[in-house]
Amino acid sequence: MPQLRLALAQVNARVGDLDGNADLVVEQCLAAQEAGAHLVVFPEMMLTGYPIEDLAMRASLIRASRAAAHELAGRLEREGCGDLVAVVGFLDRADGLEDRVGIPKNAPLNSVAVLHGGAIVARQAKHHLWNYGVGDEIRNFVPGDTINIIQVGGVDVAIAICEDLWRDGPSAAAKAADAALLVVPNGSPYEADKDDARLDLCTQRAREGDCVLAYVNLVGGQDELVFDGDSIVVAPDGTVLGRSRQFVSELLVVDLDLPAATATMPDPAERFGGLAIKRTVISADPVPSYEPLEVTEHERLPRFEEMYRALVVGLRDYVVKNGFSSVLMGLSGGIDSTLVGTIAVDALGAENVFGVSNPSDWSSEHSRSDAAELAERTGLRLDTIPIAPIFDAYQQALKLDGLAEENLQARIRAVIWMGLSNQHGHLVLACGNKSELATGYSTIYGDAVGGYAPIKDVPKTLVWELARWRNAWAEQHGETPPIPENTISKPPSAELRPGQLDTDSLPPYDVLDAVLDAYVERDLGSADVIAEGFDPALVAKVVTLVDKAEYKRRQYPPGPKISRRNFGRDRRVPITNLWREDL
Amino acid sequence: MPQLRLALAQVNARVGDLDGNADLVVEQCLAAQEAGAHLVVFPEMMLTGYPIEDLAMRASLIRASRAAAHELAGRLEREGCGDLVAVVGFLDRADGLEDRVGIPKNAPLNSVAVLHGGAIVARQAKHHLWNYGVGDEIRNFVPGDTINIIQVGGVDVAIAICEDLWRDGPSAAAKAADAALLVVPNGSPYEADKDDARLDLCTQRAREGDCVLAYVNLVGGQDELVFDGDSIVVAPDGTVLGRSRQFVSELLVVDLDLPAATATMPDPAERFGGLAIKRTVISADPVPSYEPLEVTEHERLPRFEEMYRALVVGLRDYVVKNGFSSVLMGLSGGIDSTLVGTIAVDALGAENVFGVSNPSDWSSEHSRSDAAELAERTGLRLDTIPIAPIFDAYQQALKLDGLAEENLQARIRAVIWMGLSNQHGHLVLACGNKSELATGYSTIYGDAVGGYAPIKDVPKTLVWELARWRNAWAEQHGETPPIPENTISKPPSAELRPGQLDTDSLPPYDVLDAVLDAYVERDLGSADVIAEGFDPALVAKVVTLVDKAEYKRRQYPPGPKISRRNFGRDRRVPITNLWREDL
Repeated sequence: MPQLRLALAQVNARVGDLDGNADLVVEQCLAAQEAGAHLVVFPEMMLTGYPIEDLAMRASLIRASRAAAHELAGRLEREGCGDLVAVVGFLDRADGLEDRVGIPKNAPLNSVAVLHGGAIVARQAKHHLWNYGVGDEIRNFVPGDTINIIQVGGVDVAIAICEDLWRDGPSAAAKAADAALLVVPNGSPYEADKDDARLDLCTQRAREGDCVLAYVNLVGGQDELVFDGDSIVVAPDGTVLGRSRQFVSELLVVDLDLPAATATMPDPAERFGGLAIKRTVISADPVPSYEPLEVTEHERLPRFEEMYRALVVGLRDYVVKNGFSSVLMGLSGGIDSTLVGTIAVDALGAENVFGVSNPSDWSSEHSRSDAAELAERTGLRLDTIPIAPIFDAYQQALKLDGLAEENLQARIRAVIWMGLSNQHGHLVLACGNKSELATGYSTIYGDAVGGYAPIKDVPKTLVWELARWRNAWAEQHGETPPIPENTISKPPSAELRPGQLDTDSLPPYDVLDAVLDAYVERDLGSADVIAEGFDPALVAKVVTLVDKAEYKRRQYPPGPKISRRNFGRDRRVPITNLWREDL
Repeated sequence: MPQLRLALAQVNARVGDLDGNADLVVEQCLAAQEAGAHLVVFPEMMLTGYPIEDLAMRASLIRASRAAAHELAGRLEREGCGDLVAVVGFLDRADGLEDRVGIPKNAPLNSVAVLHGGAIVARQAKHHLWNYGVGDEIRNFVPGDTINIIQVGGVDVAIAICEDLWRDGPSAAAKAADAALLVVPNGSPYEADKDDARLDLCTQRAREGDCVLAYVNLVGGQDELVFDGDSIVVAPDGTVLGRSRQFVSELLVVDLDLPAATATMPDPAERFGGLAIKRTVISADPVPSYEPLEVTEHERLPRFEEMYRALVVGLRDYVVKNGFSSVLMGLSGGIDSTLVGTIAVDALGAENVFGVSNPSDWSSEHSRSDAAELAERTGLRLDTIPIAPIFDAYQQALKLDGLAEENLQARIRAVIWMGLSNQHGHLVLACGNKSELATGYSTIYGDAVGGYAPIKDVPKTLVWELARWRNAWAEQHGETPPIPENTISKPPSAELRPGQLDTDSLPPYDVLDAVLDAYVERDLGSADVIAEGFDPALVAKVVTLVDKAEYKRRQYPPGPKISRRNFGRDRRVPITNLWREDL
């Protein structure tokens, strides 16, 4: 059987950075060639980054992306790696397709180009557009209708793009064409608490296609999304032939023994799931025999570590890709801002993290000492600016009371943070968790301000678990646990009035989070939530809180999605909405 | 030829208010019956309101909507109008459809029910889902595949739903089945500066179908959208047989002479644009002959009046449907807040509009006097709260300068407005215009705060035009022009530092708005904008401002869409985006 050395370039492409992404392709191709690879595969939309949303429909970007793909082919040849076959995702245009109603005339395609010998030798557009959850691809692209079989070193290689893999067509086509390998570029965002769906799917499709399947994914953060990599190569019998680390850029090199290409050619009129098959022979002779490498297989990370790394990567990339180098947040000594501070230190280094403590007359002593202890443990900078004189100046004019007075304190703090941000160039982080965001337990233009919200998709109970996990990890690695024990153990309070506790307004967080899981993440109606054993009055209260807080969520900063359904791209409900589950 | 009296119920359905919307149907059916109508048609998704976004996928709402449709049929019978045939939009479930990949099992349908004699006698789901611009229906619904022909008074009536009308299938099917009337329930939002596309389309489809076409649309505001009604009945020769007013609820009653139903039945296997035809005979005998009504045909409103009414209706419905009765805004004496104040008075009455003037040391004398004059002319309430003492208290602690100091003033004002809002229950209005929103010429958490932003889709040059139009309208109607002349004529300034003018930072607004029209609304790249004759350096500056302000727009309040491409549902671009047109 012919041998083939395959490289999967699991990299952090940046949205819109065509030049930087092309440089990354060249760097990885040189590394792949240095490693002796014959074929290198990059993630979905490598040249433009992913997802580019409505930028897909901008004619200037389509032109630039197509030009960049051609330029890249020539550059790889000039750099001396033109013999390597590279599969590179890019934004293409459906020149040949008829005009379709409701779709712009320049008909964007989510495509890959196969680069070899200084030229684009094949192109293929995604067939099945991702249009649920956080995906809006039917809005932005038209589907392709061709599956390529490219022959490399005497081996037939089929291509599918991300969502295509979730449908039956590509593996059936690969099997019908006797392809030995199916390569799949992906832009597949991280989501916690799924079973290992990717490996299961890859295994299933490899078996159906009777071919090796190679899945390569992006890493890095892009607005609400975090890509975790986890690139996989799996044999038709389910053997894992290679698996990358999660959340880090790496070139996975895998040696394969594959059946030689046969003369099998499906009837040109035969189509698989609507796909026509197109063959391109790049090199028909097997590569010279060589000594194969050992299999590289990294385990998936444990549950909490995986989530925590997603939060760190999401924050790091939002900050760095948007041209910031430092962040600022209010530090109350509570668990939410403390976890955010810890994530920020892990993402950016303590020297780039600026905490501000803004005690009021109603702040407890521990709120100051716990914040100070966090600073001491992590090395982040902490400044203290009391709000009393400013509060008094407002109240001289406004004479607010009740909730208005509570909110005033939160907003004074926010104005201070934003002032320091404007003056010093730090990005402000909002520290709200998902349970707060769900119930509206926050002050709009107060604690809700910021450019990014690292834990907005983390329910409060998970905030505590991640804090405990982070401390335990530090102990296991001989480091100082960053989070003060008192911050974890004390009852949560917004400290906006004397003796206030979260449980004055909200159910206990373990119950609240369970109800929110049912209502928000699983989208159950009240009756179905109650049927799971929750108190009807409590369900009614929580559901009403969630419904009424939509306007606040709409103005909340973006933050990394880690759950099956985040507030943002995943859950899109009207603000003006009189549907009440509890009626 | 048989006669038929048709009623089109152009109404303001509320999203999620199944009971209230059902009441509205009953009320309109009683009125239609009182008017002698035989058939009454309601807008798209009448029972649930429109658009319901991801609520479409909530099983509890689907169940409730189906139950409400059945209940409504019985109620109409009990109320004594069971003989009237009513076509009512609702959220249905595709019980019979096979499970499709990527779509929830309860498979929501955007449907109409035909109610008669206490029962649902036919159902039809939208075939062509709206998935561009502000429409996301492929995410939320699965398409139907059947077109109904219902026989009423011996006349065959076909049905199509909104986007279906933009495709060829329905009119071809109506023609093939010899239908004499095609009724089209719509949820079609207002957009300025389109030619009269609706009438043209209706005329074209009536001609193609060789049938009368009756188009009925919603009115009212729903988050970013404003529905303008403009219901139309048009004959196959293009004669307008009836046309409703824009922006107001009304029952349009139209008398038709229509060809009697024939025995023509297309081959059951024949399908039109993928549609199967289903016939239902409700009443085969022509109605007794009667004296027809005169044709009612209202002209479309003039350009500025149409836009202004859209803004008024959008604001009114956001306030009212969200349970507020009053609004509050900062009044600077500038044109933006003055226009917003005027719109608010027109929408809610002067007694429900609360202005706050927050002069600083750098506020001009005219900023106070112009705001006072607005209050005097319109009757809105104006309070004055100087910010100097609060500003001093912040600066004691922060010592900000430059832009940070400018933003501080804007944020102090915002905290005052939000405090008064929390204390008194007014909804805060953000007064930014589209040119500001585009270029980021606003302070996030400062002048950008609010629950609703009435002029966020109005470019600055149009702000002036609407202000002049509103004053001229008042004069024509013998009323006091609400907007002080000095507010219109003075050069715009944020007044955040001494002598500041908008033109210090921005190009003149007529040039700016022309570039923004090209870059934002028409989505041209820099090169194509420059090719229209603009200075390259100016284009580069504007494009960069637009690109860098995306994070601010993401946290801006919703406001009514009146342009072809609003910031919000229409233009969805990443925040993290390194694509620079000018590179």
